[in-house]
Amino acid sequence: MNFASDNVMGASAPVLDALVRANQGALPAYGNDAVTKRIEERLCELFERPVDVFLVATGTAANALALPAAVPPYGLCLCHREAHIMEDECGAPEFYTHGAKLAGLDGVGAKITAADLEAHLAGLGRHVKQMPPKALSISQASECGLVYAPDEVAALAAIGRAHGLALHMDGARFANALAALGRSPAEATWKAGVDLLSFGATKNGCLAAEAVIVFRPDLADSLAYRRKRAGHLLSKGRFLAAQLEGYLAEDHWLGNARHANAMAQRLAAGLIALPGVRLAWPCQANEVFPIIPRPLDQALREAGSIYHPWSSRSLPHGETVGDGEVLVRLVTSFATAPSDVDRFLGMARQAFRPRSTG
Amino acid sequence: MNFASDNVMGASAPVLDALVRANQGALPAYGNDAVTKRIEERLCELFERPVDVFLVATGTAANALALPAAVPPYGLCLCHREAHIMEDECGAPEFYTHGAKLAGLDGVGAKITAADLEAHLAGLGRHVKQMPPKALSISQASECGLVYAPDEVAALAAIGRAHGLALHMDGARFANALAALGRSPAEATWKAGVDLLSFGATKNGCLAAEAVIVFRPDLADSLAYRRKRAGHLLSKGRFLAAQLEGYLAEDHWLGNARHANAMAQRLAAGLIALPGVRLAWPCQANEVFPIIPRPLDQALREAGSIYHPWSSRSLPHGETVGDGEVLVRLVTSFATAPSDVDRFLGMARQAFRPRSTG
Amino acid sequence: MNFASDNVMGASAPVLDALVRANQGALPAYGNDAVTKRIEERLCELFERPVDVFLVATGTAANALALPAAVPPYGLCLCHREAHIMEDECGAPEFYTHGAKLAGLDGVGAKITAADLEAHLAGLGRHVKQMPPKALSISQASECGLVYAPDEVAALAAIGRAHGLALHMDGARFANALAALGRSPAEATWKAGVDLLSFGATKNGCLAAEAVIVFRPDLADSLAYRRKRAGHLLSKGRFLAAQLEGYLAEDHWLGNARHANAMAQRLAAGLIALPGVRLAWPCQANEVFPIIPRPLDQALREAGSIYHPWSSRSLPHGETVGDGEVLVRLVTSFATAPSDVDRFLGMARQAFRPRSTG
Amino acid sequence: MNFASDNVMGASAPVLDALVRANQGALPAYGNDAVTKRIEERLCELFERPVDVFLVATGTAANALALPAAVPPYGLCLCHREAHIMEDECGAPEFYTHGAKLAGLDGVGAKITAADLEAHLAGLGRHVKQMPPKALSISQASECGLVYAPDEVAALAAIGRAHGLALHMDGARFANALAALGRSPAEATWKAGVDLLSFGATKNGCLAAEAVIVFRPDLADSLAYRRKRAGHLLSKGRFLAAQLEGYLAEDHWLGNARHANAMAQRLAAGLIALPGVRLAWPCQANEVFPIIPRPLDQALREAGSIYHPWSSRSLPHGETVGDGEVLVRLVTSFATAPSDVDRFLGMARQAFRPRSTG
Repeated sequence: MNFASDNVMGASAPVLDALVRANQGALPAYGNDAVTKRIEERLCELFERPVDVFLVATGTAANALALPAAVPPYGLCLCHREAHIMEDECGAPEFYTHGAKLAGLDGVGAKITAADLEAHLAGLGRHVKQMPPKALSISQASECGLVYAPDEVAALAAIGRAHGLALHMDGARFANALAALGRSPAEATWKAGVDLLSFGATKNGCLAAEAVIVFRPDLADSLAYRRKRAGHLLSKGRFLAAQLEGYLAEDHWLGNARHANAMAQRLAAGLIALPGVRLAWPCQANEVFPIIPRPLDQALREAGSIYHPWSSRSLPHGETVGDGEVLVRLVTSFATAPSDVDRFLGMARQAFRPRSTG
Repeated sequence: MNFASDNVMGASAPVLDALVRANQGALPAYGNDAVTKRIEERLCELFERPVDVFLVATGTAANALALPAAVPPYGLCLCHREAHIMEDECGAPEFYTHGAKLAGLDGVGAKITAADLEAHLAGLGRHVKQMPPKALSISQASECGLVYAPDEVAALAAIGRAHGLALHMDGARFANALAALGRSPAEATWKAGVDLLSFGATKNGCLAAEAVIVFRPDLADSLAYRRKRAGHLLSKGRFLAAQLEGYLAEDHWLGNARHANAMAQRLAAGLIALPGVRLAWPCQANEVFPIIPRPLDQALREAGSIYHPWSSRSLPHGETVGDGEVLVRLVTSFATAPSDVDRFLGMARQAFRPRSTG
Repeated sequence: MNFASDNVMGASAPVLDALVRANQGALPAYGNDAVTKRIEERLCELFERPVDVFLVATGTAANALALPAAVPPYGLCLCHREAHIMEDECGAPEFYTHGAKLAGLDGVGAKITAADLEAHLAGLGRHVKQMPPKALSISQASECGLVYAPDEVAALAAIGRAHGLALHMDGARFANALAALGRSPAEATWKAGVDLLSFGATKNGCLAAEAVIVFRPDLADSLAYRRKRAGHLLSKGRFLAAQLEGYLAEDHWLGNARHANAMAQRLAAGLIALPGVRLAWPCQANEVFPIIPRPLDQALREAGSIYHPWSSRSLPHGETVGDGEVLVRLVTSFATAPSDVDRFLGMARQAFRPRSTG
Repeated sequence: MNFASDNVMGASAPVLDALVRANQGALPAYGNDAVTKRIEERLCELFERPVDVFLVATGTAANALALPAAVPPYGLCLCHREAHIMEDECGAPEFYTHGAKLAGLDGVGAKITAADLEAHLAGLGRHVKQMPPKALSISQASECGLVYAPDEVAALAAIGRAHGLALHMDGARFANALAALGRSPAEATWKAGVDLLSFGATKNGCLAAEAVIVFRPDLADSLAYRRKRAGHLLSKGRFLAAQLEGYLAEDHWLGNARHANAMAQRLAAGLIALPGVRLAWPCQANEVFPIIPRPLDQALREAGSIYHPWSSRSLPHGETVGDGEVLVRLVTSFATAPSDVDRFLGMARQAFRPRSTG
C-alpha cells in the first residue's frame, strides 16, 4: 500500500481520456487554441467571475509564478514556517520573485491564525533596512492536512489588506479542502479575500496540470511574460487544457476529492481504534497524521507499506511524540481503494497480536 | 494547410500510446520512477556514453536550464542574433542565468561561421567592465532551417574551447538535423565538441517533452536543483519519460524527422518550379523559406493556408526581398501528409493562372 | 599628459573642502542627516520642481538603480549599441533589473535618432515570446562626445511615450552637456520628457558621488529599497551629500564643466590644424575623437601621453579609419590645464617634423 | 549623548587626513592605482598570507558581495536569526546571490553554538526539493555585542567543513572584536577556518570603506566581476584605499577599537551600579545592552540621550525583560569621549533621585 503521496498515481481515467481526445488536429500554439480558451471560460464560470488563468505543469511553478504578481524582489512574503513554498520547492519563490524573502510564522497544524499574523506584522521593523511585507501565502489544505474555513481566510485577508498584503492560496489540495468544506470555489477564495490561487489538479487526478487563478486583474499584467520566461508556456497548450477539461467535467474533480477524503477518514477511524495510536491533528482532507508506536511503524513497513515520517514542529500545544513513537503521514488519493485502506488497517491490527514463535 | 509551425499538431501515435500505457500503477514521484530511469539509460545508449539527463516540458525550459550550467550571471553567451534564445523566449536565458547577456552575431542563414566567431571573440573588451564570454550556443537546425555539419560544429567548438567557452546546442529540431546529416547523435554532438544539448522532441512528435543532455559531468552539478527551483521537476515524472520512451522506440523519432524533411523537400521542389519563386536558403531540414510574389502570398492565405512571414536579416549576401515579394516560412512535421503539400502546391499553381472574370 | 578619462583626477578643491567640513559632529545615519536633506532640497531647486533623489557612489550604480524603476525583469530597454550601460558596466543593468535585456540601436556618434527609434519599435515582435519595450536610455553627452539638444530629447521622448517607454538619461557627463547647450537643467531633462536622470558628478569634480533623479513620482517607489539592497545606502550619508554640496555651490559644477569643455575645444582646434588629422565627430563637450596617423599616435605615446583608442562603429556614413590611421579618444576635465593641452599639441606638432638622424 | 550607533560620527582624523593627501595627481581608474595596490599588500601583510581584497563602500555591500562566492542561487546560507544579513540589509544577500535563502538559527546573544549548528545541519532535508546548505555566516562581534573566541570559530568551521560549508565572518565590528580578544587578525580568521571576511572599517573610523577579504583563492574568481556589476568598483579607487591606508597606519584602527571598547566598559560598569539595572549579555566589545527600568529610559531620553531599544529574542535562558523594563543598546565608538559616558551616567544617577515638586 502506497500512502507516500497523492502524486504516486498517474491520471484518472476521464483526464487521460480527455487528453487522448484532444490530440487530434492542428491547433494554434502557445495557448491560443480552442481547448485552452474553453478551459479559461470554464474557470470563470466555476469561480463565478472573470478570472485570469495561467496554466502550468507543476504546483511549484504555479506557486512561484503567482508570488511575483504581488511580491517585488525586495518584498517579504509571510507564510507558515512549514509551508511547501518555504520547505519543498528548492527556493522557487526566491527564484521567480528575484530574491524576495519568505518569513515563516509558527502555527498549530501548519495553519496561521489571525492573532499570529497580527502579531508578526506588528513586530516587523519598518526601516528601509527591512524588506516590506507584501503578501501572505496560506496552504489549503495545510501541510498538516487542516482546512481553513472561509471565515478564517477572511480574517487573515482583512488583516493583510490593512497592511497592504495580497493573499495567495496554495491550493495544491484545493479540491480536497473544498470537498471538506462543502463550500463553493468562490466562497473559499475571492469572496473570502483570496487574490491569487494556485489551483492544484495534479495530485487529484491530472498528470501534470495546475493553474494560477488571479482574482485581481491588476496583479495579472506580468504573468504571461513571466510564464513564458520561465519556460512554462507550452507550445502544444492543449495538453494542459485538455487535462483540466477532463478534470472539471461533471464535477469529476470533486468526486475524486470526496473519495480521497473518505478514504482518509476510513484510515483515520481505523487507526485511532488501535491501542497507542492517536492523531496529531484532526483528519480534515485527504491526509492522516497518526502518532504510532515504533513497533507498529516497523511492522507496517516490513509488510510493504510506503509512507513518510512527518515533522512534529506544529503539534498542538501540549502534544509531543514520545521516544517510542513516530509521527507519520498517510496520504490518500482518487486512486486509493477501500480495500487498500482495509488491508493496511488489517496489517496494523495484526502488528498488535502476539507473534507466534517459529 | 497549416505550415505555421511544427508545434501545431498533438503527439504522434506511438508517443501517445506510450503515455497511456505508463499511466498505470503507483510510482515514486519526482523522477525517481522506473520509466525515468529507463529513459535515462536509453539516452546514454543513444549517445554512446554516460550522459546526465534532465527532462523538462518545453524547449525554452531546456535551453534556459542548460545555459546557467556554463554561464554565470556576469557572463556572456554568444549566439546568432536571430537565435531562438535571443528572440523568442522572452528572456528565459536571462532569467535562468540571473542576468547573463546574450551577444548576437551575424551570419547567413542564422548560422555562425568559425571566422565570425573568431573575429567576435577577438573584438571583445577584456576589462572587468566587460562581461567575459563563457559559452557559445548554436541552433541545430538553425532558425533558417540550415544544418551544421559535424565539421562545422567542431571548428566552432575548437575556437570556443581556446577561449574558455562551453558549447551549447539548441536542438529543438535535432532529429530533423540528424536525419538530414545521416550522422549518429554522438557524431553530431559531443564527438564534435558539444557540451550541452537541448534535445528537442515536442516539435517532432511529443506533446511536451524535452531533455537537457549534459556531456561534461562537471557542468551537471547544479541542474537538478535549478530544474526543481524552476518548477520543471514533474511530480508524476513518468509523464515526460513515457513520451520520450515512445519517441525513441524503434527509431520512431528518426522516422518522424525523415518524413518531415521529405515533406519539406517536396514543398521546396514544387515551389521553386513556380515563376518568381526562389528559396532564401537551401532546404536542409523540415523548413522551407521561399521568397514569393506578394500576389501569390495573398492567394495562398485567402485559400486558407497558414504560415508566417520571416525575417530577411540573414539572407545570403547579394540576396534581397523585393518590394513586390515576401519571405515566408513553411514548416512541415511528422503529421504533414503528402496530400497537404500537393494541395498547397496546387493552390500555388492555381494562383498564377489568369482568373476568369465573373 | 593623461587624457585617458575624466576620472583619473581626485576631487576638485571645493568638493574636498565641503567633505572635510561635513566631517564634524554626530549625525543620524542612512541619509537621515541634515546634509542629505539639504542636498535633496538643493536638487529640487536646481531642477525647478519636486524630484526624488537617491545618492550613490558610482555612475554604474546610478544607471543600474534607475533602470528597474521603469523596466521589469521581462522588459526591454532600448539604448545605443555603444552605450555605457551596454558595454562598460559588466551587466549591472541586467543585475539590477533581474534580467531585463538591453537592445542596442545603431546611430552616428552614439546618438539615437527619432527615425531609428521609430523604426526599431515598429520592427519589434509583440508576441508574449518577445520582451516588451519599457524604456529608452540615452547618454548625455554620448559615448562619442555628442550632445542631445532638448528638441532631440523631446522627439525621442514623444515616440517613446507613445509606446509606453520611460526615458532615462545617463548623465555621467551631464554638466558638460549642459555647459555645451547653455540650457537649464530642467530644460535639458524633464521639460524635454526625461523621466529618470543619472546625475553624474564624479567625473566632473567629485570623488565618488552621483544621484538618481526621478521626475515621475510613480517611478520612485521602489528605489529606496533597491538602493539599500544593493549596498548603496551609505551609513555615513553625509559623505555623498557633502561632496554634492560643494559641487553645486556657486555653480562650481558648471564652472568645472565649462573649463573641461574649453580645454577640449583647445585640443580639437590644435589637432585639426595638423596634417592628416580630422575629427571623427564634432567636439561638443569634453571629449575629442581625432583620427590620427599611426606614426603620430606612436610618437605621442612614446612621449608619455595617455589615452585610449576608440571604436569606429558609429562613424558618420562615409567616414572610415584608414589602415595607417587610428581613432582615439582624448578626455579633458576640470583638472586639465591649458598648459597640458599645449604641451600635448606641441608634442604632436613635433612628431611631424623630420627627425634628425643620430 | 548619541549612543545610537557607531556610524553617527564622520571619519577619525588620520583617516580624513589620508583621504585629503591622496587627492593629488592623476591615477589610473578602477582600482588600478598605486594607493589601492598598497592597501592590498598591506592587508596581505596584516593577515600574514596572500589574500584577495575587494574594496567597497558599505558593510552591506561587503557581506552581500562575499556570499555569492560560496552560495549559489539555489543554496542555503546558515546564520543567526538576528544576523545583520538576515534582518538589516533589505535582502542584499538574496539580491547578490540571486535568491539564495538565509536560514536563521537561534542562539543566546546572537551567537551560534557548535551544538546548534550540528543539530540544524542534521535536521535539514536532503532531497532536491530542499536548498542545500553552502555557507555559514557569523558576526564578529555579534549583534548582541558578543565575541567569538578563535576556538569557537574553529569548532563551527570544522562542522561546516564536514558538511561542505564555507565560513563567512561579518566583521562590521571586527576591530572591536580583535581588540577584545587580544589575538591577531590571522588567528581570529583563516587560522580558525574563516574563508571570507567582511572587514569593517566604516564604523570604527572610516567614512565609507570596507573590504571583502578572501582566504580561499578558489572563492575569489567571480568577485571582481560581481563588484563591478553591483556598481561597487569606484572609478576613483583611491578614495576607498586612502581611507583604509589611514585606518591601518600605525595600528590606528586597533587604537580606535580599544578606545571604543573601553568606553563601553566604562558605561557598563556605571550602569550596573544603578538599582534595577542589569546587562542582558556581558559587555565584550563596544556595545552595552542594559535592561533598565522604564522610568530611567524615559528620563534619559528626556535628557536628550539617543539610543535604540533592542530585541530580547536572544536573551540567556531564564532571563526576561519585565513589564516595567526595557532592553536597550548603547554603542560607543572611536569618537566617544569619557566625558560623554560620565555625563550619561550622571543623568542616569540623577533619574533615581526623588524629584522635588515645583
